[in-house]
Amino acid sequence: MSRISFGKTAVIGVGLLGASVALALRESGLCGMIHGYGRSEDNLRRAKERGIIDEYRLSAREACADADLVLLSTPVGVFKSMAEEIKEYLKEGALVTDVGSIKGKMVSALEELFSGRARYIGSHPIAGSDTSGIDEARADLFRAARCIVTPTERSDSSALESIVSLWETLGARVEIMDACRHDAIYGAVSHLPHLVAYALVNTIGTAGEDYIEYAGQGFRDTTRIAMSSPELWRDVSLHNRENLLRLMDLFGDALDTLRRRLEENDAAGLESEFSKARALRKKIEER
Amino acid sequence: MSRISFGKTAVIGVGLLGASVALALRESGLCGMIHGYGRSEDNLRRAKERGIIDEYRLSAREACADADLVLLSTPVGVFKSMAEEIKEYLKEGALVTDVGSIKGKMVSALEELFSGRARYIGSHPIAGSDTSGIDEARADLFRAARCIVTPTERSDSSALESIVSLWETLGARVEIMDACRHDAIYGAVSHLPHLVAYALVNTIGTAGEDYIEYAGQGFRDTTRIAMSSPELWRDVSLHNRENLLRLMDLFGDALDTLRRRLEENDAAGLESEFSKARALRKKIEER
Repeated sequence: MSRISFGKTAVIGVGLLGASVALALRESGLCGMIHGYGRSEDNLRRAKERGIIDEYRLSAREACADADLVLLSTPVGVFKSMAEEIKEYLKEGALVTDVGSIKGKMVSALEELFSGRARYIGSHPIAGSDTSGIDEARADLFRAARCIVTPTERSDSSALESIVSLWETLGARVEIMDACRHDAIYGAVSHLPHLVAYALVNTIGTAGEDYIEYAGQGFRDTTRIAMSSPELWRDVSLHNRENLLRLMDLFGDALDTLRRRLEENDAAGLESEFSKARALRKKIEER
Repeated sequence: MSRISFGKTAVIGVGLLGASVALALRESGLCGMIHGYGRSEDNLRRAKERGIIDEYRLSAREACADADLVLLSTPVGVFKSMAEEIKEYLKEGALVTDVGSIKGKMVSALEELFSGRARYIGSHPIAGSDTSGIDEARADLFRAARCIVTPTERSDSSALESIVSLWETLGARVEIMDACRHDAIYGAVSHLPHLVAYALVNTIGTAGEDYIEYAGQGFRDTTRIAMSSPELWRDVSLHNRENLLRLMDLFGDALDTLRRRLEENDAAGLESEFSKARALRKKIEER
């Protein structure tokens, strides 16, 4: 792991992930000043009071000025407009990364937008989930967490090295992956489960007004991620639309298989589908 | 809470729930001897060695002889045949209850089968879920757990009182409910989520061979119940078939709504569905 350091870091979007990166950066001694930008001055003021950021700016351009490292940690839906807004104001050769759950075409788009000015490398630290906001931020949020880093053929190799070092210093296990493969995989293991959890909760709402009162631990676990930010998951879903539509079809097929077995009173067939799922699910526990 | 006691208890099916009831009964001092019956002598021998049961019998009829309380804790699929097998061998007026996740028609059927001999009252303690077997059994499994008790118009009122007392002594919060309403509610908040979790895991298996390796905390939680016993959930699903088919249709509708919003790039519509689900799901946390 090479030792890296940044004179100034700009955190664009001071929520759970942005604030946690700031806290972790500070704890690691990796960087000097941290400037934050966000939509809510109130939130920025609290972040400053708590020592998460040193200063805040109400303009993203000002927050980015002279920054060696720029972290995009707004909702993914505004990444592109934010990139357009700050590009000309970035320090020549600045490192830019993000913490978005979407990579794929977003990575190519951001790379293109920053090209000729800053060096962008996409990141996706797998941390956070159903909590949000700076109150939940922790310096150790990324410790032992997986972080997918998605360089392209055009990526600057020293920029890639720095970004990998950054996440490793913050405690993450970095994995290099093609950006489109990232979206296919996380569409399946993360985005689809969110849609399923949201749909399952809405089903209970339709099935019976007071049914939710009888929800036990199984239902709580199964639908915990339905408490995640609607705004965030709206953006993620729309950006991974094609994968998700295909995955929803696959999920529909899996459900139909169960439905048919049930309709036909096919006990052996039902048990065999359940057993197949159980065996695959248990693999996660064994690793 | 009236004080009750049983001379001898027969636990028919010594798995997680049967063994936990046995341990809790013993701890409460509610009963004298506990005899166990099950399919596996090896399991029964271990249950005896661990002091979960006093004796075991390889015939359900023998285990039930002279029992004041008989607990049906086999998979629900064999409740009826078991009732037929033991009925004539029960002590006159013995109390019989079960721990099955299915009530509805099952309760009427068992009531009918035992009528004229024993006094049956249906119970469903909401505990257990994805674990099984006597290794996971605990005397406090029912502490603060909900227990649905489903008397009918024909139920013996002192039998009902005893069964309620039994569960309350074991620490459960008893709720009296109509057996059919029980199946509609638990079909929605428990059985449907199991089918959904099984289907979701199978979808990941189809989507990509190594995708499961990238499953994070969200996926783990959402699919934890897919590790539940396939045999148990096969039986539960088949016994609650009509409710489940209807609920799977409702769930299909909820999924279709999301799919359409996604297809149409309807950001506001998607966010509104997510927000509705989130608000309902949060109600569980607030109670």
